[in-house]
Amino acid sequence: MNDELKSSRTELHRYPTRGHHDFETVAAILDEAFVCHIGFVANGQPYVLPTVYGRDDRVLYLHGSAQGRMLNALASAEAICVTVTLVDGLVLARSGMHSSVNYRSVVLLGSAEPVATADKERALKIVSDQVVPGRWETLRPVTSAELEQTTVLRMDIVEASAKVRTGPPQDDEEDYALPIWAGTLDFPVRDPVAVPDVRLDPKVPLPAHVANYRRPAKR
Amino acid sequence: MNDELKSSRTELHRYPTRGHHDFETVAAILDEAFVCHIGFVANGQPYVLPTVYGRDDRVLYLHGSAQGRMLNALASAEAICVTVTLVDGLVLARSGMHSSVNYRSVVLLGSAEPVATADKERALKIVSDQVVPGRWETLRPVTSAELEQTTVLRMDIVEASAKVRTGPPQDDEEDYALPIWAGTLDFPVRDPVAVPDVRLDPKVPLPAHVANYRRPAKR
Repeated sequence: MNDELKSSRTELHRYPTRGHHDFETVAAILDEAFVCHIGFVANGQPYVLPTVYGRDDRVLYLHGSAQGRMLNALASAEAICVTVTLVDGLVLARSGMHSSVNYRSVVLLGSAEPVATADKERALKIVSDQVVPGRWETLRPVTSAELEQTTVLRMDIVEASAKVRTGPPQDDEEDYALPIWAGTLDFPVRDPVAVPDVRLDPKVPLPAHVANYRRPAKR
Repeated sequence: MNDELKSSRTELHRYPTRGHHDFETVAAILDEAFVCHIGFVANGQPYVLPTVYGRDDRVLYLHGSAQGRMLNALASAEAICVTVTLVDGLVLARSGMHSSVNYRSVVLLGSAEPVATADKERALKIVSDQVVPGRWETLRPVTSAELEQTTVLRMDIVEASAKVRTGPPQDDEEDYALPIWAGTLDFPVRDPVAVPDVRLDPKVPLPAHVANYRRPAKR
């Protein structure tokens, strides 16, 4: 097993067989999602806020308003945590003790630093591509005023863990004989409904990147 | 507007019109989800971990292994943050700047304290009911050894904010004339597939709480 992203802080103690520390597993989970939960500390209080992100190789990009508190708190924080979770299904065991969730998650530790103005547009495209692949090229181009109003942060993927639970419940041996329905409730691929803006010119066709949108793209 | 859960720490500065601080809005969002992201600090490093939870009135219950690091870290932490996020859809604007996500989230600040052994079973039922309503009564009863191996924490809902974005994109006025498809991609209700355990006796019928499971229950 490739443990290159492992540290004493990202090592998993409970259910170590569910843990992974190789870049490929971490990257595959990051690529299926687009919302992360960022943890940072301000005045001794931890905060956890959801936001979108984009991955490019070993870098995660985050963005937000230059006036917003979150991005400024993140940029000045010595240590942050970014967590991404995909809930694949529910594990319905014969006891509460063994009932669980099938999920894939990544916990990424490190710090975030501002992206220079010259590199912002490329980073914003990466975030856009993560949320809706293929859309960026169809948009009205970003202006330099917009780039100035936007803070973009980068976080290197160097210290991380992935945790994966799949499959049926693992019940106590004597419970298998009980007449209790057990199995999993698997969440299907998310296939959203396109709702045109009320002000959209009906002559504008529905583009393929919207019509074919599914999340995750393949499973 | 009822601001009873508002504090200087949960006040929203960006997009204040998206913010809510009344218990009813917070509770409604908490009731639709079952996975939260918990933030806590250990050795100066913030960690964000996903877990299931249950709400009962003004209390949130969390549970985990008594041997696990997370629950012990949470119980000894002076301050934690619990965040719950529902992603309802994608907002496809005519520019990257106004592209967004329709979501509902709750950020809850406070601390967690252990639930006494005598109250653990009731709290575990509340968590189970949050994840799969109606299942707890059908399970093999919890044993006292299992209760001992499980740590249950409670967190009072006293300081919180909710943030809600709904509706179509809000583009710059001059961008509405552009021939760019815009609107929303709305994620449908999640209607999971029941997969029986390979060791399930085929004579055990599929119960209604599994057959009719949808998340969220109503929308």
